[in-house]
Amino acid sequence: MRAHIVLAHPEGQSLNGRLARVSEQALAERGWATTLSDLYAMGFDPCDRPQHYTTRANPDAFHVQSEQRFHAEQGTTPGDVAAEVEKLSQAELLIVHFPLWWFGMPAILKGWMDRVFVYGSVYRSTMRYDTGFFRGKQVMACVTTGASADACAHDGHEGDTRMHLWPVLFSFRYVGFDVLQPEVLHGIGSATYLEDRDSGLSGFDVLTQRWRATLQSIETRVSIAYNGDGDFAPSGRLRPDAPEYSAFISHTPKI
Amino acid sequence: MRAHIVLAHPEGQSLNGRLARVSEQALAERGWATTLSDLYAMGFDPCDRPQHYTTRANPDAFHVQSEQRFHAEQGTTPGDVAAEVEKLSQAELLIVHFPLWWFGMPAILKGWMDRVFVYGSVYRSTMRYDTGFFRGKQVMACVTTGASADACAHDGHEGDTRMHLWPVLFSFRYVGFDVLQPEVLHGIGSATYLEDRDSGLSGFDVLTQRWRATLQSIETRVSIAYNGDGDFAPSGRLRPDAPEYSAFISHTPKI
Repeated sequence: MRAHIVLAHPEGQSLNGRLARVSEQALAERGWATTLSDLYAMGFDPCDRPQHYTTRANPDAFHVQSEQRFHAEQGTTPGDVAAEVEKLSQAELLIVHFPLWWFGMPAILKGWMDRVFVYGSVYRSTMRYDTGFFRGKQVMACVTTGASADACAHDGHEGDTRMHLWPVLFSFRYVGFDVLQPEVLHGIGSATYLEDRDSGLSGFDVLTQRWRATLQSIETRVSIAYNGDGDFAPSGRLRPDAPEYSAFISHTPKI
Repeated sequence: MRAHIVLAHPEGQSLNGRLARVSEQALAERGWATTLSDLYAMGFDPCDRPQHYTTRANPDAFHVQSEQRFHAEQGTTPGDVAAEVEKLSQAELLIVHFPLWWFGMPAILKGWMDRVFVYGSVYRSTMRYDTGFFRGKQVMACVTTGASADACAHDGHEGDTRMHLWPVLFSFRYVGFDVLQPEVLHGIGSATYLEDRDSGLSGFDVLTQRWRATLQSIETRVSIAYNGDGDFAPSGRLRPDAPEYSAFISHTPKI
């Protein structure tokens, strides 16, 4: 079994950096092979832009999907992106480590998604959801929040973290992944970060041990239930007789 | 009245680029002053990283919030970030134009948020939500989606766009903005983009005209109701006797 681990944090000594190393170690101890993409360390560019392409489908206007598809067809997908797709293709499990910044992924991870989920090769209208490129693979997000679990609850002052994670997880569903329940570690304050960094006996140790324990039983972790493609009418709306598995159904925010 | 417009699209001739120019023109015709940040054209770096700081609060470990606060206190916030904060400070209205990529903001806009919402000067524990730095100002998102309105409905195959936008809008609420109902323009396909670009009479014209009409009555646009700070107990959970304005209440996804 092989896992690909993606880390989105600028500091290797951060809690997220430590959690990513726990992922490598704990899975290796159980016989897994692992690869790691430390996006900041790699200098990964989160923005698709003309500079990534030496030739162009349309040199007059830069259309992201058209260029992605053209280069996928030509076999000239940018090297940093092709390398990520290859690592994902070889793994049965993807683990993404990130701190929740502004109720979402850090930009470097959002841009990893923007670029690595390549239109034309990783997804297209006939290859998504149930027929997604990564079907048969699992993904799990390990997320840290500065605020407490209470403040991040469904009635919390910071908003519901599980709702904030929904677009992130749904993106993985879109490209075919089986999405495991995320691990969310709350209450990581900036003071804790600095004060505990050198102590050796930190609150972070409790969290890394909790994450290590989670990895021990990852094979039995429950995945999120989504509606299948057949549950939707050609219009794109849910069929009246379909079950309502997907979390977004009936949970429309009042905006 | 002054508006600041932020555009997150790599191609100026795109629909989003056109919509941003409509914002400039339509508001100018009504006597507004405007500023524009075309993030791709500016080469805005969406990643906070050590290279942005010539001095460091902690040279041994890069902690984003600590560095942001330290440099805010020293008056040495990176120039590109300080310029954005200044433009926001001078405006009564912020308009953000972006295509929905992977159910969220393009990385360049997420990173604008990660960097421009500066810890220490734009937010801190005693300055957020009701006491947020940008209180008294309004923000409106103008968002395009490739998928149809049906597929983006609350029971749509693409998931509920209004739920996907929630973390984005809630971030603006966090820093004090009055968040207007977003404008969401659905059904922008890649084929449409290319075929209509040179026709002069495109489907895009219908959309830009709709956006122009929206701007004509922006003063009366309804804003999203959020719970006030006093509605929450010290624990961070909603008080039992508080109203449930915020959309996230009782809308927990089943994840």
